[in-house]
Amino acid sequence: MAWLPNTGTCARVDIYTKKFNSLPMEVVVKSFEIETGKLIVVMNEEDMKELGVHVGDRIKIKTDPKRSVTAILDATTSLVQPGELALFQEVKEALKLKDGDTVDLIPASRPKSIEFIKKKLNGGHIHGHEMREIVEDIVDNNLSDIELTAFMVAAHINGYDMDETVALTQAMVDTGDTIDFGDNVVDKHCIGGVAGNRTTMLIVPIICSAGMTMPKTSSRAITSPAGTADTMEVLATVNFNMEELKAIVDRTGGCIVWGGSVNLAPADDKIIKVEYPLSIDPQGQVLASVMAKKKSVGSDYLIIDIPFGRGAKIDDLNDAHELAKQFIQLGKRLKIKTKCVVTDGSAPIGRGIGPALEARDILLCLDGEGPVDLLNKSIDLAAAVFELSGKTRKGEGRKLAEELVASGKAKAKMLEIIEAQGGDPNIRPENIPVGEHEYGITSDRTGKVHSISSKRVSRVARAAGAPKDHGAGIYLHAQVGDTVTKGDKLYTIYSSSQNKLEDAIKFAQDLVPMRVGGLILEEVA
Amino acid sequence: MAWLPNTGTCARVDIYTKKFNSLPMEVVVKSFEIETGKLIVVMNEEDMKELGVHVGDRIKIKTDPKRSVTAILDATTSLVQPGELALFQEVKEALKLKDGDTVDLIPASRPKSIEFIKKKLNGGHIHGHEMREIVEDIVDNNLSDIELTAFMVAAHINGYDMDETVALTQAMVDTGDTIDFGDNVVDKHCIGGVAGNRTTMLIVPIICSAGMTMPKTSSRAITSPAGTADTMEVLATVNFNMEELKAIVDRTGGCIVWGGSVNLAPADDKIIKVEYPLSIDPQGQVLASVMAKKKSVGSDYLIIDIPFGRGAKIDDLNDAHELAKQFIQLGKRLKIKTKCVVTDGSAPIGRGIGPALEARDILLCLDGEGPVDLLNKSIDLAAAVFELSGKTRKGEGRKLAEELVASGKAKAKMLEIIEAQGGDPNIRPENIPVGEHEYGITSDRTGKVHSISSKRVSRVARAAGAPKDHGAGIYLHAQVGDTVTKGDKLYTIYSSSQNKLEDAIKFAQDLVPMRVGGLILEEVA
Repeated sequence: MAWLPNTGTCARVDIYTKKFNSLPMEVVVKSFEIETGKLIVVMNEEDMKELGVHVGDRIKIKTDPKRSVTAILDATTSLVQPGELALFQEVKEALKLKDGDTVDLIPASRPKSIEFIKKKLNGGHIHGHEMREIVEDIVDNNLSDIELTAFMVAAHINGYDMDETVALTQAMVDTGDTIDFGDNVVDKHCIGGVAGNRTTMLIVPIICSAGMTMPKTSSRAITSPAGTADTMEVLATVNFNMEELKAIVDRTGGCIVWGGSVNLAPADDKIIKVEYPLSIDPQGQVLASVMAKKKSVGSDYLIIDIPFGRGAKIDDLNDAHELAKQFIQLGKRLKIKTKCVVTDGSAPIGRGIGPALEARDILLCLDGEGPVDLLNKSIDLAAAVFELSGKTRKGEGRKLAEELVASGKAKAKMLEIIEAQGGDPNIRPENIPVGEHEYGITSDRTGKVHSISSKRVSRVARAAGAPKDHGAGIYLHAQVGDTVTKGDKLYTIYSSSQNKLEDAIKFAQDLVPMRVGGLILEEVA
Repeated sequence: MAWLPNTGTCARVDIYTKKFNSLPMEVVVKSFEIETGKLIVVMNEEDMKELGVHVGDRIKIKTDPKRSVTAILDATTSLVQPGELALFQEVKEALKLKDGDTVDLIPASRPKSIEFIKKKLNGGHIHGHEMREIVEDIVDNNLSDIELTAFMVAAHINGYDMDETVALTQAMVDTGDTIDFGDNVVDKHCIGGVAGNRTTMLIVPIICSAGMTMPKTSSRAITSPAGTADTMEVLATVNFNMEELKAIVDRTGGCIVWGGSVNLAPADDKIIKVEYPLSIDPQGQVLASVMAKKKSVGSDYLIIDIPFGRGAKIDDLNDAHELAKQFIQLGKRLKIKTKCVVTDGSAPIGRGIGPALEARDILLCLDGEGPVDLLNKSIDLAAAVFELSGKTRKGEGRKLAEELVASGKAKAKMLEIIEAQGGDPNIRPENIPVGEHEYGITSDRTGKVHSISSKRVSRVARAAGAPKDHGAGIYLHAQVGDTVTKGDKLYTIYSSSQNKLEDAIKFAQDLVPMRVGGLILEEVA
């Protein structure tokens, strides 16, 4: 039931059943030079009252018997006069209108998907075809921020069962581009949050040099100093459309490209837009967002890296296990053989943090040099893929992965991929430029490195200009457990800008991302 | 915990703790000729990436050391170039900026109220000072649609306890105008949904002619053919500011004005804006919205009319009782002595439907003529007020109310109020103009009037042009239970426009708002 004060809000109760009582209203068009990302029109409140419509209602704008669009209504008391209709760019273009044209307005009913969203609001279960309709309307921008937010908040509070999560994932796949590379397609995902954790760029060449297919799409950094796409961009181009991506993978067996350049599960970006301001992310939504992208590229085998520990996104082992269980269940339903690996996420991995510094580590690792922890973790993850996919027998995956690196096959494959993506196949680690301005942070005492905070290291690296400034970042001279002497260099900050370097130094002195000795825990420092 | 795919959405986890890493960014201002009702600015995505901010973040726009505002950020890839900042009207005016001016941008943290909204999202309890902060940010337009929607959806799903409802009500009162008329201030509210139910315009003169104070603010119609404010507008002006309202009440003891013209509990309109598209209205919100407006005018005694029955908003007696209980409890906490009256809401009340036709009924009732059901209900409600306030002893309220009508005192008071509100004190019912175009709907059979649907009658009256066309509407010649002969006029439709009249006739023939004989129930017709 709806208990409604008679402040005119009674409109709300019969919104879905509401038949409208007006003939079309003729209005003159004016336009605003703004994109809203949605179909929105603005009317004067007087006209809205006459038409019996309200802010948030849908209205059909008809130019002739054949051409019309349905837009979401907003109101103004000024700027738009009675008899006028203001259009934003999307509507203007959809109807090819120019200022001064006249159109007919007819109140329209809301998308059916809003009823399904309300069902979830009221604790109900969303069926497959209903979820499909919701996701289609999200992708087509048919839902207002208010309606989309209601959907996400309802999911956050009431949750999804596995059937709903499967339906959501499938709908996200079906409303985007998909591609098929046949069998033995491998994928890998990391929950993220660990600085320098650039394993993807080692796993892809190892896997592909074993003859398996790994079309990897990765993200750019948002608040971290580098995403895999940013780091790969130091070595090659990462923006490719679906056809180009297919050509690269057909030729080399793999790729490392920016996910944003292909149209995989496009619903995700629109959903994130309303999740972000609320910093909510319903578990079912996370599962669906990750798996939809894997399904879209036809993955058969998937390894998920779940970093765990103090300072990591997941600091409770039960949460890590529960998340793993959900990924594996969803994988089963989607016919993606999935294995989750809980890894140590309590400190950065590798030495370089920032696109260029990380890219240098990667090439060094492929030469058998470079940070041992990064190479080892990558080999372990690749080994897990080999065993999961039956490429090797249980317990023999690591041997194969090590051979592929030692023999130089993995390196050759990486250079092949770099070339296929328009990069220089003769690139050497030492030829990767880093920021010309640098500053070394030294230890004020002798002792063991007690902790390194990924979050704080990331903030300092960002202050230095990463990821936009590819050469900016941090190089860790010491790692957790190393013994350092007073005056030893702990890490070096790089930047292409003296100003930003000074910024970063201030941050470093303030945040103390690396702690030597002592028993004071980072959280209470 | 937050499980986040590494699609860069990691930003979401530490949004509240996030320290920003950038120096101020200097940009050049351009502006859009649009009001958004909020402080919104638009940046190019490139600049946002560099500044490390995202759609929905807050950003401080500084013109000089002293002047700055914090606005909500939106993104574009075109129309706004890197190095530019696009402002909507509200921001432009707040900072007195002109196109081409340069300003500094500094990432700002979110309002604390968002943390309290998240608490409700996660099932927590909102304390008084937290609710106050949320409502203040709502009134000050500091919350985006996404954030406000999250608050309403969380309230819809998780609900409010009485403490939260009291806090919400008090915060809504405190963030608006208030007025004090001393003791014996009476108010009345109706849950609405019944056509022609214009009792307020009879209760006010009856109560005030007994020497009590009744400063009544009413709403205009949204989907109904007339709100009390629309009907009163036929006889007098209804738009007054607080000072004018006070002068009218000081002079006459009462008023009947449009609530929208005074700034009582302004949070309500902003809340309705997001509730409406979702057709949700959390019970606690309904209670708070109603009671905040009563508290703002200092009501001591309140009668709430809860129409109940088939076709009414409340069709389950238990719901009616539960709602009544909540209103009474909230009233106690606010020191408003409240009584709820469950009334028959299964059919329209009175004869006229539409502003002019209803105003005519009102004046006729004050002459002792006019629709008996309307007059009787009004007298009963006035009697309840007299007994609730101790004006009369229990059981003697009705006698006093009847006397005040019979003696002409109530009529004299109404004309006094009409004059005080700038209307004609010599107005006669027969001098109220109704639409010159009319059409009578006749019965196709002989029998008893079985049912009249308020919803359908309202649709026909709106089709005829009500409420904007004051003279448009319906006059019921027969009421439920009356026996009519084939060919008898059931009701007459009035309109000032022949086109709209023909519209309305089509609706009438299609909807059949009045049913004669038969046993077919309206709902399944």
